[in-house]
Amino acid sequence: MLTMQDALARLTKYWTEQGCLTVQPMNTEVGAGTLNPATFLRVLGPEPWKVVYVEPSVRPDDSRYGENPNRLQTHTQLQVILKPDPGNPQELYLGSLAALGIDVAAHDVRFVEDNWASPALGAWGLGWEVWLDGLEITQFTYFQQAGGLNLDPVSVEITYGIERIIMALQEKTHFKEIAYAPGVSYGEVFAQSEYEMSRYYLDDADIEANRRLLEIYAGEAQRMIDAGLPVPAHSYVLKCSQAFNVLDSRGAVSTAERAAEFARMRRLAGEVAKLWVGRRAELEHPLGLTEPLDAARAAAAVQTGTGERTLVFEIGTEELPPSELRSAREQVMRLMTEGLAGTRLAHGDIRVFGTPRRLIAVVQAVGAREDDHERVVRGPKAQAAYGADGTPTKALEGFVRGQGVTVADVETVELNGVPHVVVTKHEAGRAAPTVLAGVLAQVVTGLRAAKNMRWNDPKLTFSRPVRWLVALWGDDVVPVAVSTLSAGRETRLLRTAATPVVAIESAESFLETLGVNGIVADHEDRRELIVIGAQDLVYPDGTIDVKGESSLIDQITDLVEQPLPLLGTFDEKYLELPDPVLTTVMRKHQRYLPVRSADGTLLPMFVTVANGPVDVELVRGGNEAVLRARYEDAAFFYRADLATPIADMRAKLARLTFTDRLGSMADRADRIAALALRLAAMLGLESGALSRAAELIKFDLGSQLVTEMTSLAGVMGRDYALHAGEDRVVAQAVLDTELPRNTGDSLPLTVPGALLSIADRLDLVAGLAATVGLPTGSSDPFAVRRAVLGLFAVQRGVPALAGLDLVEGLKLAAEAQPVEVPAPLLTEIAEFFAKRLEQALTEEGQPVDRVRAVLPHAARPSQADMLLGQLAPAVSDPGFIAVAGAVQRARRIVPAGTPAGYDAAVLSEPAELALHAAVDKIEVSGITDVASFVAVTQPLVTPLGTFFDEVFVMAEDPTVRAARLGLLATVRDLGDGLLDWAHLRF
Amino acid sequence: MLTMQDALARLTKYWTEQGCLTVQPMNTEVGAGTLNPATFLRVLGPEPWKVVYVEPSVRPDDSRYGENPNRLQTHTQLQVILKPDPGNPQELYLGSLAALGIDVAAHDVRFVEDNWASPALGAWGLGWEVWLDGLEITQFTYFQQAGGLNLDPVSVEITYGIERIIMALQEKTHFKEIAYAPGVSYGEVFAQSEYEMSRYYLDDADIEANRRLLEIYAGEAQRMIDAGLPVPAHSYVLKCSQAFNVLDSRGAVSTAERAAEFARMRRLAGEVAKLWVGRRAELEHPLGLTEPLDAARAAAAVQTGTGERTLVFEIGTEELPPSELRSAREQVMRLMTEGLAGTRLAHGDIRVFGTPRRLIAVVQAVGAREDDHERVVRGPKAQAAYGADGTPTKALEGFVRGQGVTVADVETVELNGVPHVVVTKHEAGRAAPTVLAGVLAQVVTGLRAAKNMRWNDPKLTFSRPVRWLVALWGDDVVPVAVSTLSAGRETRLLRTAATPVVAIESAESFLETLGVNGIVADHEDRRELIVIGAQDLVYPDGTIDVKGESSLIDQITDLVEQPLPLLGTFDEKYLELPDPVLTTVMRKHQRYLPVRSADGTLLPMFVTVANGPVDVELVRGGNEAVLRARYEDAAFFYRADLATPIADMRAKLARLTFTDRLGSMADRADRIAALALRLAAMLGLESGALSRAAELIKFDLGSQLVTEMTSLAGVMGRDYALHAGEDRVVAQAVLDTELPRNTGDSLPLTVPGALLSIADRLDLVAGLAATVGLPTGSSDPFAVRRAVLGLFAVQRGVPALAGLDLVEGLKLAAEAQPVEVPAPLLTEIAEFFAKRLEQALTEEGQPVDRVRAVLPHAARPSQADMLLGQLAPAVSDPGFIAVAGAVQRARRIVPAGTPAGYDAAVLSEPAELALHAAVDKIEVSGITDVASFVAVTQPLVTPLGTFFDEVFVMAEDPTVRAARLGLLATVRDLGDGLLDWAHLRF
Repeated sequence: MLTMQDALARLTKYWTEQGCLTVQPMNTEVGAGTLNPATFLRVLGPEPWKVVYVEPSVRPDDSRYGENPNRLQTHTQLQVILKPDPGNPQELYLGSLAALGIDVAAHDVRFVEDNWASPALGAWGLGWEVWLDGLEITQFTYFQQAGGLNLDPVSVEITYGIERIIMALQEKTHFKEIAYAPGVSYGEVFAQSEYEMSRYYLDDADIEANRRLLEIYAGEAQRMIDAGLPVPAHSYVLKCSQAFNVLDSRGAVSTAERAAEFARMRRLAGEVAKLWVGRRAELEHPLGLTEPLDAARAAAAVQTGTGERTLVFEIGTEELPPSELRSAREQVMRLMTEGLAGTRLAHGDIRVFGTPRRLIAVVQAVGAREDDHERVVRGPKAQAAYGADGTPTKALEGFVRGQGVTVADVETVELNGVPHVVVTKHEAGRAAPTVLAGVLAQVVTGLRAAKNMRWNDPKLTFSRPVRWLVALWGDDVVPVAVSTLSAGRETRLLRTAATPVVAIESAESFLETLGVNGIVADHEDRRELIVIGAQDLVYPDGTIDVKGESSLIDQITDLVEQPLPLLGTFDEKYLELPDPVLTTVMRKHQRYLPVRSADGTLLPMFVTVANGPVDVELVRGGNEAVLRARYEDAAFFYRADLATPIADMRAKLARLTFTDRLGSMADRADRIAALALRLAAMLGLESGALSRAAELIKFDLGSQLVTEMTSLAGVMGRDYALHAGEDRVVAQAVLDTELPRNTGDSLPLTVPGALLSIADRLDLVAGLAATVGLPTGSSDPFAVRRAVLGLFAVQRGVPALAGLDLVEGLKLAAEAQPVEVPAPLLTEIAEFFAKRLEQALTEEGQPVDRVRAVLPHAARPSQADMLLGQLAPAVSDPGFIAVAGAVQRARRIVPAGTPAGYDAAVLSEPAELALHAAVDKIEVSGITDVASFVAVTQPLVTPLGTFFDEVFVMAEDPTVRAARLGLLATVRDLGDGLLDWAHLRF
Repeated sequence: MLTMQDALARLTKYWTEQGCLTVQPMNTEVGAGTLNPATFLRVLGPEPWKVVYVEPSVRPDDSRYGENPNRLQTHTQLQVILKPDPGNPQELYLGSLAALGIDVAAHDVRFVEDNWASPALGAWGLGWEVWLDGLEITQFTYFQQAGGLNLDPVSVEITYGIERIIMALQEKTHFKEIAYAPGVSYGEVFAQSEYEMSRYYLDDADIEANRRLLEIYAGEAQRMIDAGLPVPAHSYVLKCSQAFNVLDSRGAVSTAERAAEFARMRRLAGEVAKLWVGRRAELEHPLGLTEPLDAARAAAAVQTGTGERTLVFEIGTEELPPSELRSAREQVMRLMTEGLAGTRLAHGDIRVFGTPRRLIAVVQAVGAREDDHERVVRGPKAQAAYGADGTPTKALEGFVRGQGVTVADVETVELNGVPHVVVTKHEAGRAAPTVLAGVLAQVVTGLRAAKNMRWNDPKLTFSRPVRWLVALWGDDVVPVAVSTLSAGRETRLLRTAATPVVAIESAESFLETLGVNGIVADHEDRRELIVIGAQDLVYPDGTIDVKGESSLIDQITDLVEQPLPLLGTFDEKYLELPDPVLTTVMRKHQRYLPVRSADGTLLPMFVTVANGPVDVELVRGGNEAVLRARYEDAAFFYRADLATPIADMRAKLARLTFTDRLGSMADRADRIAALALRLAAMLGLESGALSRAAELIKFDLGSQLVTEMTSLAGVMGRDYALHAGEDRVVAQAVLDTELPRNTGDSLPLTVPGALLSIADRLDLVAGLAATVGLPTGSSDPFAVRRAVLGLFAVQRGVPALAGLDLVEGLKLAAEAQPVEVPAPLLTEIAEFFAKRLEQALTEEGQPVDRVRAVLPHAARPSQADMLLGQLAPAVSDPGFIAVAGAVQRARRIVPAGTPAGYDAAVLSEPAELALHAAVDKIEVSGITDVASFVAVTQPLVTPLGTFFDEVFVMAEDPTVRAARLGLLATVRDLGDGLLDWAHLRF
């Protein structure tokens, strides 16, 4: 059996043979190998660096006293850095698995999108988790930025999770059982330390002491930065990070503190990085400089075909994220279409396919050449081309020399009515390969993703590296060269295929060749294989909810090239866990399809989709082990939670800080409860269920399962409340409080829950606005915008709350904050509400003018909804148009600030007297709908028209002028409070 | 070329193949691999543990900015722990060198005594530095105690200094040049870190911040101890140690602080160790228990010889320290002599030999058997043995039964005049092997060293492990069995010999067999080989100062079994270094013999003595490289020092703390200077030289060379002062201030120097007594006793100081302290002086009664010397005896407290009047010598005798009684101030 220490030695040896240095773990606690200066500092700057080292990585948060089979406060990473990217790092990585004795062809080894970022380090990269039969064993990242600096060259970072790999290889179900060395288990060596360090991190670390450590470390880090010494400074940044992690695992870090500490660490790490780069430059880069790769030379342009042939263009990539693959296919389609349109080549249909490792464009019937073409080149004006005597001027001579013709070749034509000298050139159509080379190159360089990265190519950028190109027009290679890549006829199959590279004979045989080798290029084909395969596997006992799992299936479809659905099972005992727990694990963590019986209940099975012809039993077994471990974790927490009284979980909220100035989560829950009761009183919505639910809300934040799987907050609250015998409405209201969790999420089902949901969000907004400020720009760390959208959704969606004024509610929330919320800030928040509502309604497709017209009701979005509903037909109603026109006209004429009201006695002209009479009769108070308002104000339209036609408002007599303006101001103000008329456009 | 990373991999692989676990370096800074819990905690308790790991070891004090070729703030240790001792750890170790490609037979690999202790860890062990051609490459220790706990089983700790080994193997002269990996040098990877961390440790670390860290760490360590968690507690002890080391390298630790911090760390480490042992027991020792070795069975007792034969007994050991070897030879001689005397075996001369690896006793002509023997066993008294009727009593029956005889066998004899029943038993003499087995076993178990250790043997204890026994009487093996060892006829030669084990045919051929195989058993033979060999090597250019280097030669002689003197040279340029620097390095660090020309000047060569038939050129080259590196270091510092003005070095004293309450070394030097000037004024010894020297003293503590080689303090001061153009007397006085450095060391040569030396020691004693207290028991961390002995030596040895009263001087020193020195403490110190002087004089061989008699002069030891000189003849002089007897007699009669003086008018009896008359005539004031006092007081002797014979002192009349007592008290007090007469014995 491969022992853990042998595995470390073998990996180290393998990577050393690939030219890596071996260095030692960091001699201060680090959370990951990335923090070791052998990564964090060395990836900076232009020097090459290849290294392998072991890093015992300390995650105080993962402390479980050694009881959890898969979670350790110190786990062992093996870290590899390849700088620059060697061009084939995935293949090298697979070689390392083989060095461990893993048959990568028999197993399902997958590169699953995982974008890594460390806000505290100002670092990020794009890459994958590597899955071995569903088990994440490695983090594989193209490091793009560290310390806020762009990395050039880019480094490849490969981080192995050794305990997980070894548990899988040794088929152990608890880390303590790992054979660490011959005859010695992991537990025998490390269990005591796991237990004791867990005790320290979870229970016994002194919070005050660690706070002081954090401050001292930050101070020393800053001093060393000031002294220009990045190495000791970095070491102190790491110590900061560890002290922070200890505080965090002790539950002593508030949201605001976290943000502040991350900002400080990011700033320090950034300064360290800058210093390091500067110092290495001063030292003249002791390890030398990385040479950029040379540009590729295109294949020779050879054209053997003369008729129409198919064009195929394959862009070979490393595994693209499913979300990017769809967009990439669309881009290729657009770029191909536009590119070909820019040529004079005849062509037929364009189709685009994509798998995680390739984007393929297939164009039917592409002509062998462009048609020949006459081109008219404009020269000087005739007047300037010839002297008075008709002899060519210098200007003309210059022109013909430039065009490579003689004066005899030019003619004079009228262009825009002016005679010009022109020359007509005959241009032969270019051969297809030549023309296509330019088009295809543009396709590659034009690709962009939502998040783009760089690799060893000095010019390209995309979601993941582009590694090869196949470009064939019929039998001929299209001589594309893009940066370091040149196209050929060799495509790559699965990396584990017997022949991983095959030559394609002709464009026409390309898809067939892929297909013969198992690769299904078309998304729809793959999807069908998956759906049918999965359904076959579960038939007749179960079903797959193909519609409900549609987005998951789409994602799975774009994770494989050669889908092989496999049925796995899990122990029925796990069905005691709530459905959302089981399915969250399957979908979110494992991309497994849940299997349900006809009545919709979960069955103890799942479908996973492997990539390629793996050893089915092996892969099934591996996936089942992974799911078992995850469910074992969840069951462990669930049982513990069920054994815990709700009151005890609720009591833990006192230890969870919300933010330092806004108190604990318990304080927050108390405020929410009180606010909901006040709102209920205002609206006459009091109930026993509300009172009880108000006592319970958020208690599940104190449960272990929610601590682990935060997305289940509320869901578990309902579950635990029901288990504890609470009323169904009460239990639902506990969940409702958390709804909606994001745009499009369910709304509260109960009125008590709706009130609590509103109170939750008002409390959040009031408190954070007063302490952190309202979000600006793209930064909204506390998701205040999302909370405001939630307020709108609930107020609009729950009819019982139609009367609720959010700004009134906000004022109540503000009064309950432990900090002062000044009046001007409340105004600011109300404006913020209005802006957000404007944006939301506009995004829903409402015309912006109407949206703005109803914004006075931003505090009651349901009212705005109603008015918008009324405006939709009204805007084409002549009566409404007339009234609105009248009001707007009055508004335009009357200077701002002019009060309504006038001395009727001053009026004398008939038109003004008529208007006065009409105005005098109108009573608009209490009108809240558009139709009524129009009906009531209709009599004004004609007198007002006459008034404008006949009365000169700006009379010389100031008394008269004032009266006339006052009259118009009265008209202007009639619609106040209903709509903001000025915005309406017709 | 073997790169450094390959070397680490090879050693790890080698030890893994020997069954060691591989673990990772500690993830907090440690000064040595020993601190890693894989050593410090795992050596505790009964569980077996074999481990190998790399440990980057941080020594802030060794920071040199990466400039020094051999010194790094972080060097790489490879640490191996073998628990229990496998019995052949040295051989396993040599195997590891072979695994590195080192030909251990061609090189001179030596195990040179080095006893390791870490006061801060409460840990110690005995073992060696391993030298490779004079270069220390490994620390090899039998770990005896950790955290104050005795270790059972004992662990073997092997610590490789990787950079040094690699530099030697790669023949590099600077660590930066080491080939770390193919194409990458050590400097390219680590030089920047060396520089920056040196900056932190030497210049930039914030002292206040690190002090706070130290306190927080210690607090957390204690809290974790209280929580019963040894693992996190240990981690914080390590952090304490690092914070302390940082403070130390920043020069911020006073002597007292150091002692206090060490005490705290020792206490914490001790508690951690106890907790760990307890926790492992609670966990039922997950790694199992070490089985103790079985006792050996003796060889079968076979006797083939019948005549007298030689006995040879060899006790094979691992390398004994030279100092222990001499003592061990003496012990073997004594134990053999006594043991044989306890037998009835005839034997001839006993000779004992020793080399580092064996103790050999050779006894000539040992008889084949003991003579037969009659033994009389005493029974009950005859009276109790027979009843009145002559029948045997129960007592007699019991006796004969016990002796295995019958009543008929007994006879009655008179013993001490009382008739007893006895039985006479004939005992046959035992065979020599049987008799000798017991004697020889006692020799092994009886061996003891100044410092004893334990190894894998459950019963034996000695300076180093005993590994084999050879015991032959003639041709026969003596069947000795001691604990796990049984004697045979196989001895071991050099470990690198072609046949490392040979069988000995007979005792008579033993020494010859050793000799034939190159091993020189006799110290004197080896010494002669070394002396003659060395002299031959340097002839005719140089000489070896055989007499002056006698103790070094003795030491070298006992470091080898097969001496091979080698001549090495060094670059003449190093001769610019002062002689004491060069010779200190040679003698103390390298055990090389200096070579001098006829006129005594050093030549650029040295003699080292290898062990066994090595590759001479290789070993010479290696030793030369070691010396070059050491001289390069020294030259580096010396040049730097010479380039530094004395004032600058002196200014550094302000940054060296003496103790926290007694200020900096600058403060101390200032106090010494002022005190010396006051003493000079008192004694009329002022001079310009004194004034100047007083300004300079101790300045060389601010030099780099003295920082490195503290034993050169003063010596370098003189050298640098002379280079700076100071007067010779001034320069010498700077050295004199430090003299004597220990008992037997030179005394100051100049009067200014003597005054400064006295002032130095008075300041030390006064200050420390007031802050730390006078030394008690065996604890004297600040060497106050040595300082006091120095005071005596200087006052006694420098005639100009004869008038100096040390207690008066002490008072002046006390006044100058920054802390109060209370009057009672001064009295206590004066008493301390007297006790120390009493002890010193007694140890010099002075009779204790006379010493006590002169102790009133303890403040002026030279006066005590003089009086002792006078007492020596006086004690046999009848006149002195009479006077002394008179004074003592008067003292005995007069009650304590009776004042001298009397009313002469009350006296009436002739004898008392005669005594009065004699007393009245005597004038003793001003007499300071014994002879004068005797001469002056001689007239008293007769009247006093008569007085005692004739006068009844205790008269009834109180007036008379008082006068008589007063008269005797006057006699009693005549010798006061000269001697303490009461102590004199005749």
